[in-house]
Amino acid sequence: MISMVLLGSGNVAQHLITAFSNSSAIDLIQVVARNPKSIQHLIASNKICSDYREIKKADVYLIAVSDNAIAEVSSHLPFENRFVAHTSGSMGLEILDAKNRRGVFYPLQTFTKNKAVNFKEIPICLESEQPTDYPTLEQMAKTISDVYQLISAEQRKALHVAAVFVCNFVNHLYQIGADICEDNNLSFELLKPLIVETAQKVQTLAPTAAQTGPAKRKDTQTINNHLRFLSDDNQKELYQLLTKSIIDHGKKL
Amino acid sequence: MISMVLLGSGNVAQHLITAFSNSSAIDLIQVVARNPKSIQHLIASNKICSDYREIKKADVYLIAVSDNAIAEVSSHLPFENRFVAHTSGSMGLEILDAKNRRGVFYPLQTFTKNKAVNFKEIPICLESEQPTDYPTLEQMAKTISDVYQLISAEQRKALHVAAVFVCNFVNHLYQIGADICEDNNLSFELLKPLIVETAQKVQTLAPTAAQTGPAKRKDTQTINNHLRFLSDDNQKELYQLLTKSIIDHGKKL
Repeated sequence: MISMVLLGSGNVAQHLITAFSNSSAIDLIQVVARNPKSIQHLIASNKICSDYREIKKADVYLIAVSDNAIAEVSSHLPFENRFVAHTSGSMGLEILDAKNRRGVFYPLQTFTKNKAVNFKEIPICLESEQPTDYPTLEQMAKTISDVYQLISAEQRKALHVAAVFVCNFVNHLYQIGADICEDNNLSFELLKPLIVETAQKVQTLAPTAAQTGPAKRKDTQTINNHLRFLSDDNQKELYQLLTKSIIDHGKKL
Repeated sequence: MISMVLLGSGNVAQHLITAFSNSSAIDLIQVVARNPKSIQHLIASNKICSDYREIKKADVYLIAVSDNAIAEVSSHLPFENRFVAHTSGSMGLEILDAKNRRGVFYPLQTFTKNKAVNFKEIPICLESEQPTDYPTLEQMAKTISDVYQLISAEQRKALHVAAVFVCNFVNHLYQIGADICEDNNLSFELLKPLIVETAQKVQTLAPTAAQTGPAKRKDTQTINNHLRFLSDDNQKELYQLLTKSIIDHGKKL
């Protein structure tokens, strides 16, 4: 059994606390949190600590804090040569203080407070500075997910950028859809089945095969009608650039 | 029971033939198709016709052809003052020949050949030129879906534009995610759970509340790292514009 201390109390930390608490292969012995109140409902209070001097000895220290706090948290750890990993998609190993053995444990998912996720399907991207620490990461991943693999620093960066496109930017397009609905006294409910089906489609079809719409058909009449319809300059600019991108992508195939 | 003749043999037509064939309130008496082969597996061959002179008398004629063929098909109909509707999201009533009573029956969904859809949840947007024809549209909609409503021509145009954002453009961002994965020897499989969760999130949360990522956090360091990482000018331009749009949208709230 792997003993673990988790550092963090935010969104990702909370989901990981829940996941590891339910695991039989991981013994979550302590959570280090600046803000203990936010995790009191998730773990026994005697396991919560907010003083770095009280941190227990463990096989792994998992830092699940915001990207810009990782370096500071790792430098505060009052020990050396232990295994310390962070959970960020966009930070390299080297952000962690070099006094400890370093690793990355990056769950590729969007976490929302108070919305449960099924960890079993979430890919966990693993990387360790020393090969001898990799089995520990694998054990940790295996206990909460069916999908995990070694991802190099460069690949993880790529994956994080790709995730921004398919998650953050996609959600923003949902937002624009909602704005257009609101401006025209339409319920956003009307778009919800389409949103789900569009995501479901690419689970079995490649996105290129799933592409539909006026840009794909090079239907310039409809495209021009839509551009005339849009009064918001930002929406218009996005419509033009995305349409151009779809048409150009078609040419490359 | 409403008798119906459906005109068309493409993607949308095929899904509608299947849906209406299973309905007890609609009697699909005939399908008019230029290309009978593509629908032979869906309906008895004696109900398929490719000669406009053989079109039967029915309560409603549903034209499910591509946008640019609607006008021509409707003008070829060898009768007057019957109820004729099209299934397009981007065309007005007036595209139909004025010799008949006109309507719109627009299912707001993305249809893929050979991929079944659950019509029950698909919103059907209805519009009729004459109020007395509206109940026929309602009967038709009710028999295949639980969600249908009167949508004005202007609203339907808005909905179609919104659908382009949340479906066609979203799928293109999936494509870019897949391209980035491929360029970095990563499987697109890794992104699939994230894609589904992102769509699921906005079923219960407003897109504004669901927004995450570096743009939302105004994390300029990560944004600049991502822009340095992207070597494709088109991807870079999309990243910049979508990031700006998320930041500006946050300011409006």
